[in-house]
Amino acid sequence: MNRPVPDATVSRLPLYLRALVDLAGMGEATVSSDELAEAAGVTSAMVRKDLSALGSYGTRGIGYDVAQLIGEIRSTLGLTQHWSILIAGVGNLGQALARYKGFAERGFRIAALLDVDRSKVGTRVGDLEARHLDALPGIVRSEGVAIGVIATPAVAAQDVADRMVGAGIRSILNFAPAMVTVPDDVTIRKVDLAIELQILSYYEQRDALRDLPDGGAEGATGGS
Amino acid sequence: MNRPVPDATVSRLPLYLRALVDLAGMGEATVSSDELAEAAGVTSAMVRKDLSALGSYGTRGIGYDVAQLIGEIRSTLGLTQHWSILIAGVGNLGQALARYKGFAERGFRIAALLDVDRSKVGTRVGDLEARHLDALPGIVRSEGVAIGVIATPAVAAQDVADRMVGAGIRSILNFAPAMVTVPDDVTIRKVDLAIELQILSYYEQRDALRDLPDGGAEGATGGS
Repeated sequence: MNRPVPDATVSRLPLYLRALVDLAGMGEATVSSDELAEAAGVTSAMVRKDLSALGSYGTRGIGYDVAQLIGEIRSTLGLTQHWSILIAGVGNLGQALARYKGFAERGFRIAALLDVDRSKVGTRVGDLEARHLDALPGIVRSEGVAIGVIATPAVAAQDVADRMVGAGIRSILNFAPAMVTVPDDVTIRKVDLAIELQILSYYEQRDALRDLPDGGAEGATGGS
Repeated sequence: MNRPVPDATVSRLPLYLRALVDLAGMGEATVSSDELAEAAGVTSAMVRKDLSALGSYGTRGIGYDVAQLIGEIRSTLGLTQHWSILIAGVGNLGQALARYKGFAERGFRIAALLDVDRSKVGTRVGDLEARHLDALPGIVRSEGVAIGVIATPAVAAQDVADRMVGAGIRSILNFAPAMVTVPDDVTIRKVDLAIELQILSYYEQRDALRDLPDGGAEGATGGS
């Protein structure tokens, strides 16, 4: 459990976990590496390699035990405990994140919403009242905040990251479309909302090419 | 260019592209598979395999030409043309997406914002005026919309997806925390905003364990 897992494997574990939770919801007790690979969008060889890094090898001809694997991945990812997070930036994105049900479901509790804009401080978003960014150090201490989420405009992102690091936060999730640098002992991940659009673009282009004169004609494409 | 690229490779190309654009911005003319691997968070063997699927093999001892590789990935992903997208759901998330600069920068033009809520129809978000969802079929035709983005509450997601498919949209990006089913000839991808938090959770837990009695003491952890 304390053994290091390769970074690339760590980044795929949430995809496996989501697929496994869906499978459990459908009443599946076991899953093959092929099925899990398809659900997560990777190869079955990669599934086997990733899960072996967790010490899970499955059973030949049967596959992996869904419930057990969910437990192992959650434990590896540290999802068996609750984490307090805070969101800096109470614009549309910050508010959307504050209301996003998927965080609480996964054990991430939003401890605070912070902004520098006086017109936003004091407004309520769901159960929380937005506070001034200056309150950050005290909140990190009193609420045991583990992860800071940056949902500010790009121009404010570096300053907010610096304040988070200064307050002792070592894990930052950056939604702002800006490059942010942090010390080596801080982990920062950037969410790029356009990544998935670029993947869809590939399929859209491929299908458009397939429908050209010598490719089409087969299409029983849905209702009009 | 028309050759099929494995799905798993397609899903990594935007990560390479982002890293390459950053490198180009820093004035780098070439990049090794090791550097690209580190920037994208995968192994260098995977970089070489993925890029060979595009017909790019790099030069031994020199690496890949950054500008050329950017061109090849953009061409493969279909990013050399502009795509029109529409966003269904004008709540916080829909508004945040409508204002997200990263879409236009990558050639995705937002053609319309749609909602069923009469209090939202007619409101302005940036340059666009929200319209009623009933206008969807006409907008898809007149604007040549290629990709539909679902930013509605979970309960509305399936209905919106059905309407998009009925209007001829074949690529859907779903931000709603709901399982949505579409016909086989439609590509749907789900964005899960909690995925990255779960990855951060791993590092947070690992560092917490490292700081336990027999692991700590070394920490020259930044400013107080």
